[in-house]
Amino acid sequence: MENFILYNPTKLHFGKDIISDLGKTIATFGNKVLLVYGKNSIKENGIYNLVKTQLKSINAEVFEYGGIKSNPVVEDVDYAARLGRNNNVDVVLAVGGGSVIDSAKIISISIPVSHSAWDFYSGLKKPSKAIPLVAVLTLAATGTEMNPYAVLQNHKTKQKLGWGNQLCYPKHSFLDPQFTVSVPRNYTTYGIADLVTHCLEAYFGKGDASLSDRIVISIIKEAMDYGPALLQDLKNYELREKIMYAATLALNGITMAGRTGGDWGVHDIGHVLSLLYDIPHGASLTIAYPAWMKIMKDRIPERISNLGKELFDVDTYSETIIRFEEFFRQIECPVRLEDVGITIQNREQIFDTLALNKASGMNHKLSTDDLKVILDLMYTERN
Amino acid sequence: MENFILYNPTKLHFGKDIISDLGKTIATFGNKVLLVYGKNSIKENGIYNLVKTQLKSINAEVFEYGGIKSNPVVEDVDYAARLGRNNNVDVVLAVGGGSVIDSAKIISISIPVSHSAWDFYSGLKKPSKAIPLVAVLTLAATGTEMNPYAVLQNHKTKQKLGWGNQLCYPKHSFLDPQFTVSVPRNYTTYGIADLVTHCLEAYFGKGDASLSDRIVISIIKEAMDYGPALLQDLKNYELREKIMYAATLALNGITMAGRTGGDWGVHDIGHVLSLLYDIPHGASLTIAYPAWMKIMKDRIPERISNLGKELFDVDTYSETIIRFEEFFRQIECPVRLEDVGITIQNREQIFDTLALNKASGMNHKLSTDDLKVILDLMYTERN
Repeated sequence: MENFILYNPTKLHFGKDIISDLGKTIATFGNKVLLVYGKNSIKENGIYNLVKTQLKSINAEVFEYGGIKSNPVVEDVDYAARLGRNNNVDVVLAVGGGSVIDSAKIISISIPVSHSAWDFYSGLKKPSKAIPLVAVLTLAATGTEMNPYAVLQNHKTKQKLGWGNQLCYPKHSFLDPQFTVSVPRNYTTYGIADLVTHCLEAYFGKGDASLSDRIVISIIKEAMDYGPALLQDLKNYELREKIMYAATLALNGITMAGRTGGDWGVHDIGHVLSLLYDIPHGASLTIAYPAWMKIMKDRIPERISNLGKELFDVDTYSETIIRFEEFFRQIECPVRLEDVGITIQNREQIFDTLALNKASGMNHKLSTDDLKVILDLMYTERN
Repeated sequence: MENFILYNPTKLHFGKDIISDLGKTIATFGNKVLLVYGKNSIKENGIYNLVKTQLKSINAEVFEYGGIKSNPVVEDVDYAARLGRNNNVDVVLAVGGGSVIDSAKIISISIPVSHSAWDFYSGLKKPSKAIPLVAVLTLAATGTEMNPYAVLQNHKTKQKLGWGNQLCYPKHSFLDPQFTVSVPRNYTTYGIADLVTHCLEAYFGKGDASLSDRIVISIIKEAMDYGPALLQDLKNYELREKIMYAATLALNGITMAGRTGGDWGVHDIGHVLSLLYDIPHGASLTIAYPAWMKIMKDRIPERISNLGKELFDVDTYSETIIRFEEFFRQIECPVRLEDVGITIQNREQIFDTLALNKASGMNHKLSTDDLKVILDLMYTERN
């Protein structure tokens, strides 16, 4: 094992109707609340009203910012932070999926300062204080509800970056699987893809950590056992519950113990695809992972075939990769760029942006040549 | 799943030589330190000196209490709490195994009050404040380093009770597997037994929690794969590392997600055996668990046989129980009362104390008749 720190101060409230504890939890921080959310879906599915009822019960003064996009951008974060700063809010309440909660994390550290949030991402500034953040999750996917990471994109600099800071852990996160029952089929499946690839990023990180490997495999098995079933029965509470909890554990630190961190090379590549073509995060990952494994199969053959043995009962790395592609297809995720309408004409643009973003893993470093090969492998093989 | 809260604010520092971060960590709380430890072993193996060097580096004013017994008693806790109170300490530093850290938790909530620590256990008083607690672990076993629980015994009332409070989480725990290399063979094995039975208590708790089941099985597999190997090679750092981390995860909350808690019926029985005959905690559990499973095999046959399938590749509950007994024997743990010198003459006394302590599980309740049957099953079967 590598030396490691296991630390996660977020208090996760999980289960049916746990939203009833939201009001009194918020009240422990104050009553001036910046409420952050995304598209109008929380108004359509009733979650907005449930949250407002909780806020009313504590006579909260609420300032709303409802403009977060599914691939969140720095302008929204800066705008919402100003709103919070000008009104001296006591607490930030995020209601939504990964993009909303990620944005809210950066809002919570931007409220106490006067510069753009992007200065944290560029490394120009370091945060020293955060307004307490409470999250209500409506999409099982990124694990943001119980980690300190946030992804943000900047169209001016053509970057989409992941970043994290200890100040960004939500103080509390409320996870009611009922809140995910209305998530449409495609975003349900991208969420499953996201949690599986988070496990893979941990698995391919640096460090011989047998118990963390077992936990990675346990979480992926949950996704394999219950993910396809959920797609056949989107309103099933028990299945929503299993996927929601699996997504949280996939990126709350428990898969990283005994490692110096995950690899994240595939996420770097996926972020570039999302930045350029606004394709969903989960979909970008199921395209990039098989290609990445193919280039790694000569470097870490046993590491890949061990996964195949545990998950698919197959013996070789080639079969392992085939079975991953089959699983991603089974949950209706793309595995080639053409599947999401990206053609060979886009090749040059993708490559340039991969190079600009310095897409590479932390453990298995990718060279420029590697990126070229991976890019070609993301296109359907031509004979 | 049952609704649950996942919360653990302890910061775990794990790995070789991480003790070098102890001084500056302590200093964040102040420089008047109550140092709590047990027998002289930390002076013999050099850990005491390493800790004192760290305390010296921050010019700490140190008050020492080195009298904690392996089955900790209320008198020691009350004495140490007075020492801390009279000297107005800023932080409690526990250096030792489960008994020392458990005691230090209760000391840390007893310093701000004037009554006996036992009043928390009897329910007469509730804690409202704690002096920050930092732990340095020297024995892989109970998981106390990353949970809010503490076991304490009271010879006057003839009770040994487990109890927990959110204020009792250590702020930081330092786990260097090197510190466990000198643990003798018998306490190494009792630690392995302890971690395995913690997993079992979680597994038999209330709630259909498939991912937590998988994690339970992952942790037990670590113990099965590396525990017997460690007994053949006590100085092996990598094996010490695996067992040390497994013991932490076995009782830090991650096995309980989706359940209302563990069962703990076997621990209740084990505590009675330790209270009466001062036998090591881990040893009491390997005697009690097979007997408990035997009485449960008609009530929860599938739950038991599922464990057998995953862990031992056997199909029936009877074979599962036999294999558990074999594993406990393999790691040189007792499985019958006679193995630790308790004879049939003690039967009445044990039964009376089981009844007085109201030994019972939280999920699978034990009646007085059940306790009688379990007690007989803990003795070698007579024909």
